[in-house]
Amino acid sequence: MSEPSRVLPTRGGDHLLRRATADDLDAILQLLADDPISASRGDRARAEDRPAYERAFEAIDRDLAQQLLVAVDEEGVVVGTMQLTLIPGLARQGATRLQIEAVRVRADRRSHGIGAAMMRWAVASAREQGAALVQLTSDSARVDAHRFYERLGFTGSHVGFKLRL
Amino acid sequence: MSEPSRVLPTRGGDHLLRRATADDLDAILQLLADDPISASRGDRARAEDRPAYERAFEAIDRDLAQQLLVAVDEEGVVVGTMQLTLIPGLARQGATRLQIEAVRVRADRRSHGIGAAMMRWAVASAREQGAALVQLTSDSARVDAHRFYERLGFTGSHVGFKLRL
Repeated sequence: MSEPSRVLPTRGGDHLLRRATADDLDAILQLLADDPISASRGDRARAEDRPAYERAFEAIDRDLAQQLLVAVDEEGVVVGTMQLTLIPGLARQGATRLQIEAVRVRADRRSHGIGAAMMRWAVASAREQGAALVQLTSDSARVDAHRFYERLGFTGSHVGFKLRL
Repeated sequence: MSEPSRVLPTRGGDHLLRRATADDLDAILQLLADDPISASRGDRARAEDRPAYERAFEAIDRDLAQQLLVAVDEEGVVVGTMQLTLIPGLARQGATRLQIEAVRVRADRRSHGIGAAMMRWAVASAREQGAALVQLTSDSARVDAHRFYERLGFTGSHVGFKLRL
């Protein structure tokens, strides 16, 4: 199986999709903090929270089922991120699922097709890995995001339940 | 950290929650097939599908982030199942999520509190493992299940998007 190309041609120029390294952490945290819903959940890129983020980064990085990715522009600036998780399962005739979490594109780079190119890459990658399903949840308040996912072929067929501990 | 007790007291007697083994596969497949929504997605416990289910079981079993569990009654009969996945992440200040998939209770054993006891165990286990969030998606058609999750404290705050490949 050949991996789908990690060069994402977009209306804002070519972008490279690559695995995030510890050096990308601040840029990713800024993407989270710039999102009002994430900020309301406590993601504000505060210095005092950095140790918790570093521990989380290490846990993601050492887990073979996880891929934390960044999209960088031609200058190497991080403009997008997403996390992919491969989940084997019995349901749907033993289907492996690719789950997408924490999709973010820098506010001043939106509407250039970067997010769509990232998502299409994720779907192509899921196919390459033999997954039968790609899934994600999106906060009910993110109405624009819902249209975006529907344009990409996703169906909002489920209710996403969360319980904070 | 001590693991929450795997003995689930229910109105239908004590049940034991344990990791599924290959010997439980047929019973789990029967639980899937007995569910009309699962059956409509192709889970019909057919002999010709067994190799795919066996491969999926092995993939789940060797992935340390996965726990495929069965609830068995005092006679050792499998009456429920669920799959738990631990997903590290950066969002929500580096929160680890516990994701619950494929919750099923045998039709003739419902309304005995078995499913609720399984879910409460999953939530307690999430806490023990330091997770900050428990999440699951439920087909929009499963209106009774939604009420069940809400009674357990879950909030249907998200839309669950799926894309079949």
